[in-house]
Amino acid sequence: MDHLLSMKQLGKEGIRSLLARAAELKAGEPHALGRDYAVSNLFFEPSTRTKTSFEMAEQKLGLSPLPFEAGFSSTLKGESLYDTVKTLEAIGLDALVIRHPEDGYYKELEGRTSVSIINGGDGSGQHPTQSLLDLFTLQEEFGKLEGLKVTIAGDVAHSRVAKSDRDALELFGAEVRYLCPPEWRGDFEAVDDWEDVLGESDAIMLLRVQHERHGGGEDFAPEAYHARYGLTEDRAARMKEGAIIMHPAPVNRGVEIAGSLVEAPRSRIFRQVENGVYVRMAVLETILKGRD
Amino acid sequence: MDHLLSMKQLGKEGIRSLLARAAELKAGEPHALGRDYAVSNLFFEPSTRTKTSFEMAEQKLGLSPLPFEAGFSSTLKGESLYDTVKTLEAIGLDALVIRHPEDGYYKELEGRTSVSIINGGDGSGQHPTQSLLDLFTLQEEFGKLEGLKVTIAGDVAHSRVAKSDRDALELFGAEVRYLCPPEWRGDFEAVDDWEDVLGESDAIMLLRVQHERHGGGEDFAPEAYHARYGLTEDRAARMKEGAIIMHPAPVNRGVEIAGSLVEAPRSRIFRQVENGVYVRMAVLETILKGRD
Amino acid sequence: MDHLLSMKQLGKEGIRSLLARAAELKAGEPHALGRDYAVSNLFFEPSTRTKTSFEMAEQKLGLSPLPFEAGFSSTLKGESLYDTVKTLEAIGLDALVIRHPEDGYYKELEGRTSVSIINGGDGSGQHPTQSLLDLFTLQEEFGKLEGLKVTIAGDVAHSRVAKSDRDALELFGAEVRYLCPPEWRGDFEAVDDWEDVLGESDAIMLLRVQHERHGGGEDFAPEAYHARYGLTEDRAARMKEGAIIMHPAPVNRGVEIAGSLVEAPRSRIFRQVENGVYVRMAVLETILKGRD
Repeated sequence: MDHLLSMKQLGKEGIRSLLARAAELKAGEPHALGRDYAVSNLFFEPSTRTKTSFEMAEQKLGLSPLPFEAGFSSTLKGESLYDTVKTLEAIGLDALVIRHPEDGYYKELEGRTSVSIINGGDGSGQHPTQSLLDLFTLQEEFGKLEGLKVTIAGDVAHSRVAKSDRDALELFGAEVRYLCPPEWRGDFEAVDDWEDVLGESDAIMLLRVQHERHGGGEDFAPEAYHARYGLTEDRAARMKEGAIIMHPAPVNRGVEIAGSLVEAPRSRIFRQVENGVYVRMAVLETILKGRD
Repeated sequence: MDHLLSMKQLGKEGIRSLLARAAELKAGEPHALGRDYAVSNLFFEPSTRTKTSFEMAEQKLGLSPLPFEAGFSSTLKGESLYDTVKTLEAIGLDALVIRHPEDGYYKELEGRTSVSIINGGDGSGQHPTQSLLDLFTLQEEFGKLEGLKVTIAGDVAHSRVAKSDRDALELFGAEVRYLCPPEWRGDFEAVDDWEDVLGESDAIMLLRVQHERHGGGEDFAPEAYHARYGLTEDRAARMKEGAIIMHPAPVNRGVEIAGSLVEAPRSRIFRQVENGVYVRMAVLETILKGRD
Repeated sequence: MDHLLSMKQLGKEGIRSLLARAAELKAGEPHALGRDYAVSNLFFEPSTRTKTSFEMAEQKLGLSPLPFEAGFSSTLKGESLYDTVKTLEAIGLDALVIRHPEDGYYKELEGRTSVSIINGGDGSGQHPTQSLLDLFTLQEEFGKLEGLKVTIAGDVAHSRVAKSDRDALELFGAEVRYLCPPEWRGDFEAVDDWEDVLGESDAIMLLRVQHERHGGGEDFAPEAYHARYGLTEDRAARMKEGAIIMHPAPVNRGVEIAGSLVEAPRSRIFRQVENGVYVRMAVLETILKGRD
């Protein structure tokens, strides 16, 4: 594996192998990098958890990422992403984690750089390491992915998480359903009534209402959205026994999910964050070892 | 000690012990951390000296802080400080240094996170490591704190330094007096004539006029302020023999202090900065060792 | 060498010695730093390649630079560069790489700080490490500098690269010519017709049109500039055999240079970036070793 751009690229075996490695790393196995590598995290969109999670993964792998401030780089002078990446290649970088607002930003890079690219989220496209940590968390919880019923609720059309997770979960024989307002459906087949999915779902994954992505927002009424499409305390109480709550975060408390549920016994929201570090270690380790 | 939130929490023994440890570290004793810890510096307000001082302290302790850019984090997407801290806890952070514009920002975190919080300044509240370095510098200079006469001059009401230092200095039997314009007095008893304090003070600590905190400023006349409340060259010449000048910095030269005094023989302003590194090493070391 | 502020300071021997050391480092010789040093990169202007290049050089020298965010430092509270540098000196920094928009920003620091200053570019003044990497690249290509014919084309008057390179190249007996529109000539003697230089130049160095430095720009027509003053594909085809294309980057593709030429066989643009790391290692190593 030279790059990690989307879940589709990995295939079932690739995913299985990364999840297995992440489990070993979480169990305390030492990493397998035999030397130092030069990496950097290029985040062209704000991020706390993905960025810090990669940084922690890098630190646990013994790497010191070179700092990169997107808001203070030559992209301000109009330099293209391609030229920025080629520059970092010439400087000697081995791998770049890139988050970028443009869907498929990596397409202009494919086959044109020797730096390994790890997609940290592209616009409304893909977010493969988030998807891997979701699979990891489900697998850890239920011991399997096959046959699980997962409901993804919320801003489906704009969500790179929904897209990455759909591809991956279906590959493993999970059944994925979507719940959202009609205008956020995109090309997903979705229901808009919780009663259709609530009692049957093994996992309910709420998506963040991304105020920054759909310009509108003025006529968006958080309370009304919560009442109709959010996971309320009442709905959570009627979830299937053993079912879990997931969310890629950051959370809008009281919008897509009641604030009190974020740390409820059913919630795996912070567990997902914890797992993300090990999944990213597995990805970085696999890609960097592959360079030798 | 799990956290360092305010000077009050430390008590006399706690302060004494940190100052003693800082002195050992300044004298070249090696630090006592036996393993690596994950730390990060969350500065939600601009800072050069406190942030860099913590970073230097961390580096001297063998730690590599995870970068955190407040201006480019998920707080931009509306994530609360609580959720940010819980996320960093899940990622595996051991300690966070936090500077935040809100007074007592840490109150919503107390008892709710296993990450150690070190207060790097909260609004107009507390700034405990600044206070520790002030005490350290006074102790280093005079060999004791008891009986010292310290004058704090300037923007007392808005100053977290004034509040932290008052609590601590009085605990050690120093006599603290305040000099400021009536409108910046807050709940402090203050004089407004230098002649009341000039000849008697062992240390005169100037506070920065914080243009960014009191919105007004339009009718603020720097020259008039300097003439009436600033430490002018003339006043400095009439200070008690052996008395020293202090300032938490950054300095407004020619406002609260004449520019020529910043590096005068009496000034300990850059010595304070130097001492800050050792005080912060002592705080971090104590808190991190306490986690094992 | 305590500081590196301009090429003039170095003299022929100083330059020769840094280029020789950079060549050794590029050939894989280990660095000669016997201990850790505290360094930081203060960039008050956006930068990708110079900043990351210094960071990579520091990493290869085993150093962990302290982060400094100019846009989030006390300079926002009005602190002068002098006071910032004195603060970092007190904190214990050994060396600072500084890029600053003001010409000759370092003059107020000379003789007043014990921190070593490495000029990473001052306004329209000097950019000595860029100049060193240009010389290194020319030397690597042609085995010598003496007698080379180098044409620098573009925004000569505003360019710190043009100034640094002129001083250095002439010192080594290279012949430097300039090509630019009359209004960007400054105090340089320049031609404005490619035919005067195209067939004779061993190296053509394009300069970036710095939209951010000359306010105007409204009546700037990129296509017209390209046709008249840019390196077009046609002109490149008529360059002397063995002649090379250089550019300090970032590149405005299609303005000062045709996009297709950036990675053409003649181009050394990314080679320059690569060489920059070794040149900066040599500078940092020399200055830091000199502190002991």
